[in-house]
Amino acid sequence: MKTEKEKMLAGEMYSPEDPELVKGRERARRIVRLYNQTMETEEEKRTEMLKELLGSTGETVRMEPNIRFDYGSNTHVGENFFANFDCIILDVCEVRIGDNCMLAPSVRLYTATHPIDPVERNSGKEFGKPITIGDNVWIGGSSIINPGVTIGNNVVIGSGSVVTKDVPDNVVVAGNPARVIKHVEVK
Amino acid sequence: MKTEKEKMLAGEMYSPEDPELVKGRERARRIVRLYNQTMETEEEKRTEMLKELLGSTGETVRMEPNIRFDYGSNTHVGENFFANFDCIILDVCEVRIGDNCMLAPSVRLYTATHPIDPVERNSGKEFGKPITIGDNVWIGGSSIINPGVTIGNNVVIGSGSVVTKDVPDNVVVAGNPARVIKHVEVK
Amino acid sequence: MKTEKEKMLAGEMYSPEDPELVKGRERARRIVRLYNQTMETEEEKRTEMLKELLGSTGETVRMEPNIRFDYGSNTHVGENFFANFDCIILDVCEVRIGDNCMLAPSVRLYTATHPIDPVERNSGKEFGKPITIGDNVWIGGSSIINPGVTIGNNVVIGSGSVVTKDVPDNVVVAGNPARVIKHVEVK
Repeated sequence: MKTEKEKMLAGEMYSPEDPELVKGRERARRIVRLYNQTMETEEEKRTEMLKELLGSTGETVRMEPNIRFDYGSNTHVGENFFANFDCIILDVCEVRIGDNCMLAPSVRLYTATHPIDPVERNSGKEFGKPITIGDNVWIGGSSIINPGVTIGNNVVIGSGSVVTKDVPDNVVVAGNPARVIKHVEVK
Repeated sequence: MKTEKEKMLAGEMYSPEDPELVKGRERARRIVRLYNQTMETEEEKRTEMLKELLGSTGETVRMEPNIRFDYGSNTHVGENFFANFDCIILDVCEVRIGDNCMLAPSVRLYTATHPIDPVERNSGKEFGKPITIGDNVWIGGSSIINPGVTIGNNVVIGSGSVVTKDVPDNVVVAGNPARVIKHVEVK
Repeated sequence: MKTEKEKMLAGEMYSPEDPELVKGRERARRIVRLYNQTMETEEEKRTEMLKELLGSTGETVRMEPNIRFDYGSNTHVGENFFANFDCIILDVCEVRIGDNCMLAPSVRLYTATHPIDPVERNSGKEFGKPITIGDNVWIGGSSIINPGVTIGNNVVIGSGSVVTKDVPDNVVVAGNPARVIKHVEVK
């Protein structure tokens, strides 16, 4: 029989009040709170804290405060990851980000979702869908990535985009909902 | 003759520099500041502070820091209210939210507005329009609810929506401006 | 030969790891961090700090915490400037704002940008484009102003707008991308 955590990571309905999950969120909130109190001169400490918080990272990982995570442990970022001010990552399911990716300020990655049916939703059970982002992706300021979205390599997401569907390699998307507005010629 | 506060709540032009209103905003900013400094282990204290800050609440009311309010006292939430990280509620006019409502991270409820005419606007006088939200409403991440909007029961607002008009019962809306994209069959 | 700072301000490709620029960002982050810790009763101290942080201001300048800036020193605001909660200004290039302007909560002014080509982008070099905003402009909640945009006088930007192109005098714009939805008759 699956634990609630296993159900959550598998994208099945789960109860967020499960003690193991409550503990996981409290761990993340504690690290996040301390991280958001660090000073601009403490880059090394910040890197260490991110390596503790996240599921896995490359050597170089930088995020400007404030950061927000549900668990942190379900977020995996590749080499040379940078997130500017005030990004939010809801990682009830896995968030997997490749190498050389940048999040502009106020980007939101939302794996968490709820039933549309109000009676089911009010049960308190919920579910998520993973987000996967390739290599060399730049997500523009204040963009939103919806649950279940996969983004290819060499992609640029224009500022203020709401990405509701998968994005192929080598394109620029923009808008709400985001649509391809340009192809990127990769040399 | 109406006080500035009475004019404000009635949706008429008012002066925000009125001493009673300045005091009301300072009270809210003080509680909000202290709230945003609480720890993840202090859920009971947070609930008490929200019950002090808001006009009225149900028994269960949870908001993840950071929270932002103009007054707090003009916001009324029903039973089982939950707001995730970094929501902003500008409640110069009343915000009334029913039972079993959830705000995803970074949702903004804006009752505050200003004259379109620049000369009037520069007078410093402003006005608002109330926001009313039914029962069993889930507002998706980073959505904006504009002044004067009424949202029905059993509604889902897709992430990144900008809600500029009233929303009927039993629908999903999304987009900028938000439009009905689906009907919710309530059992 | 131009310094990296001169290249940055000129809109040319520059290296953000340049020591003078690193120092400039650390100065801004320090002032911003201290500003965001001030109390609601310290309006005079806040004004002083903003006058220290920004390139130039009028007599009256108010911003509600949290504020975010890349440099601050490249941002110039006119008389009677007000920014509500949680605005972000990325000022690698100049941000010039006229008199009597208001930013609603969560407005983002982004002068910073990156090459679309992933190989160039991964070099770490980047560039910006200035943002210019006229007099008597009200930017609605959570709106985004993209790099290089010029906004005229007596303009209203509707909440949640993504402004990707220049905006003439005396109009209301809204949407993603923002489009003119109304003309403002100025008496």
